[in-house]
Amino acid sequence: MPVARVHRISADSPDDTAGLRQVIAAGQLDPAGITAIFGKTEGNGLVNDFSRGLAVRALTGLLEETLGYERAAQVCLVMSGGTEGGMAPHWTVFERQEGAAGASPALAIGKAHTPALAPEQLGRRAQVELVAEGVRAAMRDAAIDDPADVHFVQIKCPLLTAQRIAAADARGATVATRDTLKSMGLSRAASALGIGLALGEIDGSRITDAAIGSDWSLWSGRASTSAGIELMGHEIVVLGVSAAWSGPLAIDHAVMADGLDIEPVRAALARLGLDVPGQLPPSQRDRIVAVLAKAEASHDGRLRGHRHTMTDDSDISATRHARAFVAGSLGGLIGHAEIYVSGGAEHQGPDGGGPVAVIVSRAG
Amino acid sequence: MPVARVHRISADSPDDTAGLRQVIAAGQLDPAGITAIFGKTEGNGLVNDFSRGLAVRALTGLLEETLGYERAAQVCLVMSGGTEGGMAPHWTVFERQEGAAGASPALAIGKAHTPALAPEQLGRRAQVELVAEGVRAAMRDAAIDDPADVHFVQIKCPLLTAQRIAAADARGATVATRDTLKSMGLSRAASALGIGLALGEIDGSRITDAAIGSDWSLWSGRASTSAGIELMGHEIVVLGVSAAWSGPLAIDHAVMADGLDIEPVRAALARLGLDVPGQLPPSQRDRIVAVLAKAEASHDGRLRGHRHTMTDDSDISATRHARAFVAGSLGGLIGHAEIYVSGGAEHQGPDGGGPVAVIVSRAG
Amino acid sequence: MPVARVHRISADSPDDTAGLRQVIAAGQLDPAGITAIFGKTEGNGLVNDFSRGLAVRALTGLLEETLGYERAAQVCLVMSGGTEGGMAPHWTVFERQEGAAGASPALAIGKAHTPALAPEQLGRRAQVELVAEGVRAAMRDAAIDDPADVHFVQIKCPLLTAQRIAAADARGATVATRDTLKSMGLSRAASALGIGLALGEIDGSRITDAAIGSDWSLWSGRASTSAGIELMGHEIVVLGVSAAWSGPLAIDHAVMADGLDIEPVRAALARLGLDVPGQLPPSQRDRIVAVLAKAEASHDGRLRGHRHTMTDDSDISATRHARAFVAGSLGGLIGHAEIYVSGGAEHQGPDGGGPVAVIVSRAG
Amino acid sequence: MPVARVHRISADSPDDTAGLRQVIAAGQLDPAGITAIFGKTEGNGLVNDFSRGLAVRALTGLLEETLGYERAAQVCLVMSGGTEGGMAPHWTVFERQEGAAGASPALAIGKAHTPALAPEQLGRRAQVELVAEGVRAAMRDAAIDDPADVHFVQIKCPLLTAQRIAAADARGATVATRDTLKSMGLSRAASALGIGLALGEIDGSRITDAAIGSDWSLWSGRASTSAGIELMGHEIVVLGVSAAWSGPLAIDHAVMADGLDIEPVRAALARLGLDVPGQLPPSQRDRIVAVLAKAEASHDGRLRGHRHTMTDDSDISATRHARAFVAGSLGGLIGHAEIYVSGGAEHQGPDGGGPVAVIVSRAG
Repeated sequence: MPVARVHRISADSPDDTAGLRQVIAAGQLDPAGITAIFGKTEGNGLVNDFSRGLAVRALTGLLEETLGYERAAQVCLVMSGGTEGGMAPHWTVFERQEGAAGASPALAIGKAHTPALAPEQLGRRAQVELVAEGVRAAMRDAAIDDPADVHFVQIKCPLLTAQRIAAADARGATVATRDTLKSMGLSRAASALGIGLALGEIDGSRITDAAIGSDWSLWSGRASTSAGIELMGHEIVVLGVSAAWSGPLAIDHAVMADGLDIEPVRAALARLGLDVPGQLPPSQRDRIVAVLAKAEASHDGRLRGHRHTMTDDSDISATRHARAFVAGSLGGLIGHAEIYVSGGAEHQGPDGGGPVAVIVSRAG
Repeated sequence: MPVARVHRISADSPDDTAGLRQVIAAGQLDPAGITAIFGKTEGNGLVNDFSRGLAVRALTGLLEETLGYERAAQVCLVMSGGTEGGMAPHWTVFERQEGAAGASPALAIGKAHTPALAPEQLGRRAQVELVAEGVRAAMRDAAIDDPADVHFVQIKCPLLTAQRIAAADARGATVATRDTLKSMGLSRAASALGIGLALGEIDGSRITDAAIGSDWSLWSGRASTSAGIELMGHEIVVLGVSAAWSGPLAIDHAVMADGLDIEPVRAALARLGLDVPGQLPPSQRDRIVAVLAKAEASHDGRLRGHRHTMTDDSDISATRHARAFVAGSLGGLIGHAEIYVSGGAEHQGPDGGGPVAVIVSRAG
Repeated sequence: MPVARVHRISADSPDDTAGLRQVIAAGQLDPAGITAIFGKTEGNGLVNDFSRGLAVRALTGLLEETLGYERAAQVCLVMSGGTEGGMAPHWTVFERQEGAAGASPALAIGKAHTPALAPEQLGRRAQVELVAEGVRAAMRDAAIDDPADVHFVQIKCPLLTAQRIAAADARGATVATRDTLKSMGLSRAASALGIGLALGEIDGSRITDAAIGSDWSLWSGRASTSAGIELMGHEIVVLGVSAAWSGPLAIDHAVMADGLDIEPVRAALARLGLDVPGQLPPSQRDRIVAVLAKAEASHDGRLRGHRHTMTDDSDISATRHARAFVAGSLGGLIGHAEIYVSGGAEHQGPDGGGPVAVIVSRAG
Repeated sequence: MPVARVHRISADSPDDTAGLRQVIAAGQLDPAGITAIFGKTEGNGLVNDFSRGLAVRALTGLLEETLGYERAAQVCLVMSGGTEGGMAPHWTVFERQEGAAGASPALAIGKAHTPALAPEQLGRRAQVELVAEGVRAAMRDAAIDDPADVHFVQIKCPLLTAQRIAAADARGATVATRDTLKSMGLSRAASALGIGLALGEIDGSRITDAAIGSDWSLWSGRASTSAGIELMGHEIVVLGVSAAWSGPLAIDHAVMADGLDIEPVRAALARLGLDVPGQLPPSQRDRIVAVLAKAEASHDGRLRGHRHTMTDDSDISATRHARAFVAGSLGGLIGHAEIYVSGGAEHQGPDGGGPVAVIVSRAG
């Protein structure tokens, strides 16, 4: 029976694989079972974030050395740049092992890759459908039938660069935007809508080209999408609960309505057995395996009735502001900031908010 | 008997005085009693933050129009730049009126100005002493005898620019630093130590030139200092409790040990009658008049055992990261982000943490 | 007979009017004749550039004090933010006086204001037409009949903020973009096309909504447009040559094909009598009264066959890169950097290049 | 007889080695002879510039693949981050081959590595001496006896991070600065003084700890130093002229007194046979093999009598401003921007200026 294990490992730099090598050497992690690695790396999380590429090179090097080229290429590497505020750079390593049947249902992991997009498909309906197809494939891989059992879908999606736009131009194709930074938002948007489509959260007929990146009433409460310069396809990881899996880990999720809306997360923690009034005390904090969240500045420039300045700041991208802020609000609840807060939550939770998944160890 | 009133007013831009004009027109605020205005303005909070100068010009214009030049010049204007994360730009207007004796002791306000510093005194013992003298003057102005009754001291202090350094050079004087950004930190540091000296929190013999901006074991738990390009002296405002004052407002303070340490603030809220397990619900939130806090990145690059990247980020100043993050953690507790989080907390609370004062309306 | 005088005055800060007061006090400038002031101020030149607002407040204060409210309001204040690289913040003050008939034709100045735009007109054909109408009015004001005699048209145009977008939303109107930074580009683009339309440089039928900000084959070689948060209409200043004017000043212009294309500027200098092989020597440099230029990163990511990274940098806006770079290339020719290089040259010169006007004193 | 060849290769990303692979495959470059690669990569050139680390990984991978581990480790990789303005990311590959005796004297190349510094030695006299020793070793390697025949010395030196500072703290050692960004400047400063000491340009008795990074009257006209996070020792490359070498390449250098001082560079070009009045025309431009320059903002905040704002800008580092600006002034002379302008020119040329070396192909 498959067992999911999750290892959270601190990173001293974007290419620091020492911690990962150590848990492998100590026999705590069998590299053969690695299905995905989520990284929070310390770049700007935007177009010219080379911390992600550096991390991918370093992790790939380790995996190829350990597993060989072919198997290494099957591991989903999802690097989310940006550790603003007090966030700690770290890796979250997802491992699938065969084990004796234990507590079940339990955390289940599935994954899929999609083919490459053409630059002109990015941010359009074609991308939504490609992604929805990929999510369904990843659910099958996780042995999850009911979309209600899916608690988090992480997708790494592509972006446009000046050169990719030029390539489309050369073929006479029209891209959805010529602004490279904006292309990241459109790609995240289309990918999130693809998740919502696959999970039945959104009426597919409403997802038109025009709605992508503009109709914020359409959203998935379990989507997390990050854009990166290093790929033109999508890497998809589904996390959920399945009776076909066993093990010590449980997962649940919440949707924050805005960057301060931590009470739904507190409620999710309570459902998982961590029921506390204030900040998690160290004993309970230690049972937190991973916090996976999306953050975003609201498009109307307001937060609970007051003005915020994130979208009018031309020196710092709104995504960087939002990550720092939500790392603070969630960190105030959890008690540390080695958490995964990913920026750019277009169609991922309501406008200005975002989904949060929590993976915990069941109480001994 | 003096009565302190505090008005928190949203600002649509750094020169938006419409809200202030409105409360005056509505008779809710008598401009003759204005002693100080704290502003959170939306610049970068660093050397080239012109939002502060713009705010000072706009507020001064309004005050001169209303009160005349002489009286307007006596109002302490403390503009703290930087509304990172979801923080809302706003004014906090402190008013002193004579009223019938009511609930007492109550919030008391005092203020003082110091003479101008020479550029070469900035960041040195001479600045510490000048500030301590000013704090004592402001306490007398507030009718507070016991330093334990002081809960917050806000100081606006000067910084060096390339031209001020050149002026010192021309006289053969040596400045403490030639790095303009660093001069802001040194000025805040010396001012905070001056507060600690005046309040008896720090042994004066330990405050040497070398300790300023480097010996982080020296700190005040009630100091808040901001540097600005627009002055060469100091504007000092003392907030505390005095039996010589009456009125509906109460104040208390807490010290955060780090950017996530919100439980001491929760305890301060409880002492003020706002005792809740999670986030303040709207009914209690409405009794919050002002939250005044300092935020800072720890100098050892760690937060609760994990690495943070704030001090290694050359694109965004650590003070901007820290403000965004602490606005999130405090906002998660309070329930909104129209709060005053000021960056650069050198010697203001322990390294990586900072003081937080809360002013509330007593329950009806 | 009207005489145009131009005063270039260094600024120590965005609100430094001391130099201007000094030339007035010295009788070198009669404030009654001030028609326009162009400022290079030291903000980021983007949405949250408060150096422009601060400058406008300071200059307006001086003008109102000197000329009274009504006359002060007629002076065109065009503040262009961003003094990247070695550029020097300064004011260029345009004065129109009546004088004895001297050398003629000579530099002529005209101006106009347009009514306010609705947010939803920004970046669309309606803005183009409003601007073209305004340029024609400014030409009449300058007594210039032939568009070939116009050498520079400076326009200050509006931008969208989160709040202006919300205002349009509230009316059910659709804005051209919801990205505030991008709105600056669209507004500059539509204004530049309006100039090109008025000067007969562009076939009006080609200027559709879709072409604005995207069809870079449409451009004016004499347009300079800057967007600012402080207005919703347009301030238009036309500079050219007219036989109806006399005086010591001459003007010519060149079009740079890219940011390094300084030879056409050298040729314009030669036409104005400053004919030198290398950098202008100090004697000739002193005859330069003003250099007014536009700079921009090319949209294809290439400069003379090599890749540039300006449009892929998410930490620094491409407009800031381009201003710094062109300030270097033009400064290398002129010999100093107290020049006016304004960013965002959409439809102002060919893609990646921009117009440059030079005003010189005729040789004694 | 040794022959030096230099290959300038465009880079599409920090890890783009395709161009290098291509010239090797085409037989134009024999990898066995590679002694050094200088890279201009597109990061911020500051503490958190991961483009350099990524480039080093990519180039190292290629070299190890081609040459084996041991030989690859001997190649000096000097990655200078920051391609502001229109600068083009590129590699400059230095190759040493044995060839038939041709034109001589000719360009000669030498190199050396120093041992690792302790963090507390950085920015102090100990670093100066270590570097001077290394420069002498590199001159011997280049067969250059007379320091006057040295035209450029490139050094990659270390910087401090929060963690390296903590390591020194743990040993009770005191670092020269706790500000990681400032540590880059101190390291470049000490390294430049080490070059000046080795070349006899600076009186060694004047190089005290206090003078490093502060007495700008001490400088080398041939030093170029860059700080990087990826090493704790120094990589030193000396370029000059030696009668022991032959080949088609020549080198000379100039010192710019400020960022606009291009006439000395024009004079150096003339000495090398490229004698033109304006910008180099394409025919002559093609003979330019490499332009290697340093750029810096002057510490007094002035450029040719006017104020610059580079050192007062807290959003963009002065080093980034200076690189963009000097790329413009030099690019305006040379005619393209695939040049190597490296920031942070402490003690490298006079304050605000910097050395420039030019390598050209002798006319056929």
